Amino acid sequence: MSCKASALFTKNLIKAAPVLVSQKKISRSSSKIRAIIVNSGCANACTGKKGVKDAEKMCNITAKCLNINPEQVLVASTGVIGEFLPMKRIINGIKNLTSSLKHSPVEAVKSIMTTDTSPKFCSRKFYIGKKEINIWGCVKGSGMIHPELDFTPKSMATLLCFIFTDINISRKLQDLALKQAIDNTLNCISIDGDTSTNDSVFLLSNGLAENKIINSKKDENFRKFCNALNSLCYELSKKVVLDGEGATKFVKIKIISARDRMSAKKIAKTIATSPLVKTAIFGCDPNWGRIIAAAGRSEVKINPEKIDLFINGLCVAKNGATTNLSPTKLKRSMRKKEIEIKILLNSGDVDFEYYTCDLSYNYVKINASYRT
Amino acid sequence: MSCKASALFTKNLIKAAPVLVSQKKISRSSSKIRAIIVNSGCANACTGKKGVKDAEKMCNITAKCLNINPEQVLVASTGVIGEFLPMKRIINGIKNLTSSLKHSPVEAVKSIMTTDTSPKFCSRKFYIGKKEINIWGCVKGSGMIHPELDFTPKSMATLLCFIFTDINISRKLQDLALKQAIDNTLNCISIDGDTSTNDSVFLLSNGLAENKIINSKKDENFRKFCNALNSLCYELSKKVVLDGEGATKFVKIKIISARDRMSAKKIAKTIATSPLVKTAIFGCDPNWGRIIAAAGRSEVKINPEKIDLFINGLCVAKNGATTNLSPTKLKRSMRKKEIEIKILLNSGDVDFEYYTCDLSYNYVKINASYRT
Repeated sequence: MSCKASALFTKNLIKAAPVLVSQKKISRSSSKIRAIIVNSGCANACTGKKGVKDAEKMCNITAKCLNINPEQVLVASTGVIGEFLPMKRIINGIKNLTSSLKHSPVEAVKSIMTTDTSPKFCSRKFYIGKKEINIWGCVKGSGMIHPELDFTPKSMATLLCFIFTDINISRKLQDLALKQAIDNTLNCISIDGDTSTNDSVFLLSNGLAENKIINSKKDENFRKFCNALNSLCYELSKKVVLDGEGATKFVKIKIISARDRMSAKKIAKTIATSPLVKTAIFGCDPNWGRIIAAAGRSEVKINPEKIDLFINGLCVAKNGATTNLSPTKLKRSMRKKEIEIKILLNSGDVDFEYYTCDLSYNYVKINASYRT
Repeated sequence: MSCKASALFTKNLIKAAPVLVSQKKISRSSSKIRAIIVNSGCANACTGKKGVKDAEKMCNITAKCLNINPEQVLVASTGVIGEFLPMKRIINGIKNLTSSLKHSPVEAVKSIMTTDTSPKFCSRKFYIGKKEINIWGCVKGSGMIHPELDFTPKSMATLLCFIFTDINISRKLQDLALKQAIDNTLNCISIDGDTSTNDSVFLLSNGLAENKIINSKKDENFRKFCNALNSLCYELSKKVVLDGEGATKFVKIKIISARDRMSAKKIAKTIATSPLVKTAIFGCDPNWGRIIAAAGRSEVKINPEKIDLFINGLCVAKNGATTNLSPTKLKRSMRKKEIEIKILLNSGDVDFEYYTCDLSYNYVKINASYRT
């Protein structure tokens, strides 16, 4: 069954070979994708022309084994940058895989885990009239996670996300739904601020639900699909953050009453990627000054005297100055597994949410010896 | 002896009370500073109007004890954000200090150390004719270090730096010399990417060397002074990086043949603050792909196919693709205490240097429990 495929790729200017190869195919052939071949362990990035040839070969062999057109095969990789794919092993792997295809998506997710500690997937179901619509998605990634995904050769972390649905929808609206969902979910998380060279999100639809094709933004069913897709992508995002390398806590950062979305995101990202904020959260250290200092260095023009800061609902600063809240009380609250940081800028009407995790000994351990 | 004072303060929009107070005095009274009072343990930041009053009180009490004008006293603080100064202890401290003044600058440096493991100071000497000119400087800081210093209320990390000289120079040229020196040294280092609310650099000159006053940029002696000051600030910067919280390595990042200084600095900063790069260096992990990936996400327009990357002189990537250098060889070289990362962009004629350290277990340990 061939599928309409939408995809977003990393904004990193250093793009892995599989990203370049899949990007081309997505722009050429929008509605006939039948397979995605994925490997982990080697990112096939910084591998020059040979890397591109290897990625194309992965598609070609897969197509040959499945007796389909190479144009119908997409490719993705995750792993160490700067090494060539072990093509002999890859080719043997593809032959074995294609001769024993199963209806078992969870096995596929498990097979590409690197520093992930668990397979991450979820599904949504809704109805268009009497037609049941299904969406199933999975995601891989727990480090080098700071997605900045876009259609055009711009940026996202090694996060690989695959979403499949049986809905009948135009390619244009499928693109739009994916872009909106990712911008509010996977593009709003950061594990470590490092955006990967290989990030890719794919959304494939085969139309098997047989609903009347969705062709208009105003179609109520488009809204239904967007809601289900958003909800699925949010759950996948949360799973990524919870499985972040070394993570012990899930941190929600709410920026309230900002001037615009871009400045709200900039402030949230600066807080989410501050090593001092992240280590304080790991240690349940009520050192909230680090949060407000991060906001102050975010290059967004803020008015220090208008800022209120809440941690887990406790007001620690009002109009930029301490409320003298008991550190013991705050510390007790910070022992929770979920931490909510809320900053009121009192300078506009835009609210924004961003998600991250803490920075622990284990993050250092995992990344001081990832390759060797 | 009263001094001409130049100073640079943090660009962080959240500025500590002592920064606000000293900034005002520096702009008002340029040539009669006689004392700087400094405390550590409490940053007096996010403390509102009471904080400003407390900082002013520190100056006033110091002035009274020394029988000088409060306008002649500057103030600086470092420590936890969001707590009020324990004014009773501070006042008693000032009384004790001023009644037992010594010619022992090293004791002053030691007294304001927080997570610093050693006092950091150095000196330079040169001649103008037969007049000996002395410069002595010291610096405090090992975390929340990502200085962005400027004259005007803009930004620098809790880094406190005090430089004293007996040269006779106009205030205008003294300002210029300080700005140039800091832009090439302290403003080119990062421990953790977090810019503090309290960063301040002070340069005081008393003219006791009795050289003919330096009034012109073209005066050869101005160049001599700038060279000595640059060299002193570079040594202080290196000391800060070497004493970075948890640091085990000194990392020099050279960006070669960039289009302009700003884009070179942006790339270098992105590499220097990448947790993946810093943990790899800590673990001597030859995972150079993380360096090139950081360059790719720096938001500077680079041409991936033109980039060459060297680590400790070993070429790991040429024209953006791996040279297939033996990881064992690279790993051996990465065991050194000093690591040099050199990126050739081949897109212009600007070279730039930036300095940082690695990210170790100890950084997490120190910062997961700084306050409690």
